[in-house]
Amino acid sequence: MSDASPSQRATSWLAAFENALTSGQTSQVTALFEADCFWRDLVSFTWNIATQEGHQAIADMLSSCLKDVKPSHFALKEEATEADGVVDAWFTFETAVARGLGHLRLKGDKAWTLLTTMTELKGFEEHKGPRRIKGAEHGAHKHRKSWLELRQEEQDTLGYSEQPYVLIIGGGQGGIMLAARLRRLGVPTIVVEKNARPGDSWRNRYKTLCLHDPVWYDHLPYLPFPDDWPVFAPKDKVGDWLEMYTKIMEINYWGSTTAQKAHFNEAQGEWEVVVNRAGQDITLKPKQLVFALGVSGYPNIPHIPGAESFAGDQHHSSKHPGPDACKGKKVVVLGSNNSAHDICAALWENDIDVTMVQRSSTHIAPSDSLMELALGGLYSEEAVKNGIDHHKADLVFASVPYKIMHSFHIPVYDEMKKRDADLYGRLEKAGFMLDFGDDGSGLFMKYLRRGSGYYIDVGASELVANGSIKLKSHNNIERINPKSVTLTDGTELPCDVLVYATGYGSMNHWLADLVSPEVADRVGKVWGLGSSTTKDPGPWEGELRNMWKPTNQQQLWIHGGNLHQSRHYSQFLSLQLKARYEGLSTPVYAQAKVHHVR
Amino acid sequence: MSDASPSQRATSWLAAFENALTSGQTSQVTALFEADCFWRDLVSFTWNIATQEGHQAIADMLSSCLKDVKPSHFALKEEATEADGVVDAWFTFETAVARGLGHLRLKGDKAWTLLTTMTELKGFEEHKGPRRIKGAEHGAHKHRKSWLELRQEEQDTLGYSEQPYVLIIGGGQGGIMLAARLRRLGVPTIVVEKNARPGDSWRNRYKTLCLHDPVWYDHLPYLPFPDDWPVFAPKDKVGDWLEMYTKIMEINYWGSTTAQKAHFNEAQGEWEVVVNRAGQDITLKPKQLVFALGVSGYPNIPHIPGAESFAGDQHHSSKHPGPDACKGKKVVVLGSNNSAHDICAALWENDIDVTMVQRSSTHIAPSDSLMELALGGLYSEEAVKNGIDHHKADLVFASVPYKIMHSFHIPVYDEMKKRDADLYGRLEKAGFMLDFGDDGSGLFMKYLRRGSGYYIDVGASELVANGSIKLKSHNNIERINPKSVTLTDGTELPCDVLVYATGYGSMNHWLADLVSPEVADRVGKVWGLGSSTTKDPGPWEGELRNMWKPTNQQQLWIHGGNLHQSRHYSQFLSLQLKARYEGLSTPVYAQAKVHHVR
Repeated sequence: MSDASPSQRATSWLAAFENALTSGQTSQVTALFEADCFWRDLVSFTWNIATQEGHQAIADMLSSCLKDVKPSHFALKEEATEADGVVDAWFTFETAVARGLGHLRLKGDKAWTLLTTMTELKGFEEHKGPRRIKGAEHGAHKHRKSWLELRQEEQDTLGYSEQPYVLIIGGGQGGIMLAARLRRLGVPTIVVEKNARPGDSWRNRYKTLCLHDPVWYDHLPYLPFPDDWPVFAPKDKVGDWLEMYTKIMEINYWGSTTAQKAHFNEAQGEWEVVVNRAGQDITLKPKQLVFALGVSGYPNIPHIPGAESFAGDQHHSSKHPGPDACKGKKVVVLGSNNSAHDICAALWENDIDVTMVQRSSTHIAPSDSLMELALGGLYSEEAVKNGIDHHKADLVFASVPYKIMHSFHIPVYDEMKKRDADLYGRLEKAGFMLDFGDDGSGLFMKYLRRGSGYYIDVGASELVANGSIKLKSHNNIERINPKSVTLTDGTELPCDVLVYATGYGSMNHWLADLVSPEVADRVGKVWGLGSSTTKDPGPWEGELRNMWKPTNQQQLWIHGGNLHQSRHYSQFLSLQLKARYEGLSTPVYAQAKVHHVR
Repeated sequence: MSDASPSQRATSWLAAFENALTSGQTSQVTALFEADCFWRDLVSFTWNIATQEGHQAIADMLSSCLKDVKPSHFALKEEATEADGVVDAWFTFETAVARGLGHLRLKGDKAWTLLTTMTELKGFEEHKGPRRIKGAEHGAHKHRKSWLELRQEEQDTLGYSEQPYVLIIGGGQGGIMLAARLRRLGVPTIVVEKNARPGDSWRNRYKTLCLHDPVWYDHLPYLPFPDDWPVFAPKDKVGDWLEMYTKIMEINYWGSTTAQKAHFNEAQGEWEVVVNRAGQDITLKPKQLVFALGVSGYPNIPHIPGAESFAGDQHHSSKHPGPDACKGKKVVVLGSNNSAHDICAALWENDIDVTMVQRSSTHIAPSDSLMELALGGLYSEEAVKNGIDHHKADLVFASVPYKIMHSFHIPVYDEMKKRDADLYGRLEKAGFMLDFGDDGSGLFMKYLRRGSGYYIDVGASELVANGSIKLKSHNNIERINPKSVTLTDGTELPCDVLVYATGYGSMNHWLADLVSPEVADRVGKVWGLGSSTTKDPGPWEGELRNMWKPTNQQQLWIHGGNLHQSRHYSQFLSLQLKARYEGLSTPVYAQAKVHHVR
């Protein structure tokens, strides 16, 4: 068949695949895969986010799922392509309850990677395009209510006389995007957020903050940014967009509301969550509870001897007020990741004396190189011109199994080392400790494995290299004195303001405090792949721990990630919640075990 | 050449056209047109909105404009098509200062209709797509200001220490869309609006109001509605969208601000406009003044004997509070157009006794028929599926010369008469006076000629036909008594609430009061084509009077129309203003004469 076109080869593979699935003979199915193969499923076969690696895993999954899933109607979606002996194909398919979109990589006539994703539940499609509502009901209707009256009724009753099905704790970008999808799916949802307005979590950060990811990567669902949106949006502009988006999407958003305590009532099969809304305690009883507080927990503040004796101002980077409050002072920033670099640069730009204390090596990825080498193919003006909008890009991204993702990234960073050799050389000369991840796979793998350890360079690295930002590397703060800090190498640095750019603890601490330590431990560690690299202990999980999928605590979910992940994975989390809301059977295959707590 | 493909025929026509234009021989150019021909130009050749009808008019325009315009680079944009012996072609072209998009209809090898439109000024393109700004300036910059600081600075200085180049009076949909385009073009602009918030002009209307035009027709520039937006958006939802849009587009919008007096300072060549902003008088000195107050003026309230003796509540439809304020009362509505029908229906739906007094015949266009027969081809889900988005639809719409537009519409309404014969029959049986316009060309021509005389039926006609809404036709109110009204046929109707759904006066009244009667008369009548049909006196103008183009008052402009018109024509008005802001030469060809005042 080697003379057949990529589309012909993909089509016949899909036909054979459907036959094999229909036969129910798992050996027939696995025979269509390479020995070294991966099947990633986003809730369409497994009601889970899971990657099956190898024939046995695929066979086991199918023996368990096939009878319920009843897959059918596999069809090529567009012309397949071939590059480096690998055929790339997009296809649509159906299951008993849903429609799906898939991606296939063929080596020869056998599947190397397969992605299956759920796009919509049959009978519960979104009211969009030809299905959109009319808005004005034509004809005459006694005592009809206006859109505004109905909207106000909902806001007056939901959470009081009516209970939401889903409660989302955390009204940042993640909570907002998930709520927008649930709104479209008609699932009664409330978002609670401690800040007053949507977007405040961005507005409250230091004033020079801009997105480190480019616009093509950052779109929210349903309402893409206008075509003049800046490549790197300033944080207050993002804040305004989130506020507008929340309003337009008709999200039931409770600002100035803090979650106090959550308890799962086994008997009722529902949560009891006490929230304080603008001073008043209200008990909500949602069936599903989603934590959208970000994937990290409380600020990490190391306990350094003498801290209590410090005469100046000390705060975590998340509380950093920006340069205006530091005029004329000597600032020491402990840490060397994104926030540390951004804060140091803003201070230098305002003529403030600043020193960065680097404790461990950091990966530096110059923004322009990152755009061109790592993201450009999927998220850029060129990609859009080539027909790869963010919807398609997200799926391409999802189609690469985590197990082999690093092998896609290593060449990118090898190229970056060459391209930016001059900067890297001068940074090392300045004493900066550099790394590219344990296996040289760079920024995104570090993000997935540990969520830290890097800086997307938008200018500060030059300031470190040329000494404008003073650097003390191979060092830590050994003790804090009233007007200075003493480093491990004995240096004493004068210090009026001490910034702890020391990252965040585990997300589980939120769970432990808000629900209980038992539930936090039952859910276990959040984020990370189990890659057995620095700060990502094994065993291998194959997917991010506990993200966007069922956890070991019934009816408790965790949502978050960057704008790209929140956008893409909110689709699958919203479909999981919708299915449960409608009482569909959702047998979860291979619920992940918990290997680490906190 | 009859065996040549439509694209070949269009291509060779464009080549011949460019040669003829380059030769400067106007006779060579007109030889390429049918005797019965039209060339409509939207500011690309004439710096005006003007249609040349016939060879002589085209020759005259070219003799005057060609030397400045220097047209070139005419090229087919996509495959041309042919239907009923007419070839349809889209093309791009350039002038000395701009890039343009055009549309051509060929009969045989000669042009029947030609449309030329300006899309952008060379060197002043919008910063979109690949030209978008970076947002975050990478690198280190001493004392850089954040987006928020710059935005706040602008809001603090513009209108005070800095003067806007353009002042837009009226912050409804029209003013907002124009301001958004000027923002993109970098023209300093302020919008003043008497209501507090953008969208209030919609929010303040009667509660059941929904758009009568469908979503595909209603998009604003740059930010289309999400794909689940209702077909007919409720007015409060539209209000929220406009408010969000104004914020996101970074428009300098002064709410709670009323324009008091405007005077053109000949010596300075600028306007002096006194506005009251939240109680404080401020004098603005813009170079260009745009009236975006809608195309109609003050509410028409007929002076009826006894009005002062009326014991109940009487108000114009624009002030109608809706049914809640009318419970248990007897309501008489004078008038039979859109507002009258909407108000009567809402009253009936709330069990309120209501009578419509019809003075003159009205055109009824059932909404569904209007969608399918009149708009469907250009503005619908199907149109979008066929690749006709609203950008293309707007241009197709613009490509039909007003002189022959009615001939495109008459067949549509002949079809509507058949399709809705039953409703029309029952309406006439109920005594309702029906018409389809003087020449049977229906709703849109009535809208263009006189801006009144119709109802888009979303349900009220059935209530009129079946008597739920009581009808007194061939009638007017002769006198008003304390608790009743007496009609011309002698009937006395008990009346607690009297609603004047009697339309609006001429837009010039705004000009007369805000500037001066002299300037109002110099500008002359606004809207209407000079079709010599009812309420649209001749002579023939060929375009809407004074809309979106230079008026006879220097540096004074009028903007408005429905959402479709405000969206499309704001493009050409913004380009005219930008060209003047940048000091480009903008010789206006054939400034329209004034034939009617007020």
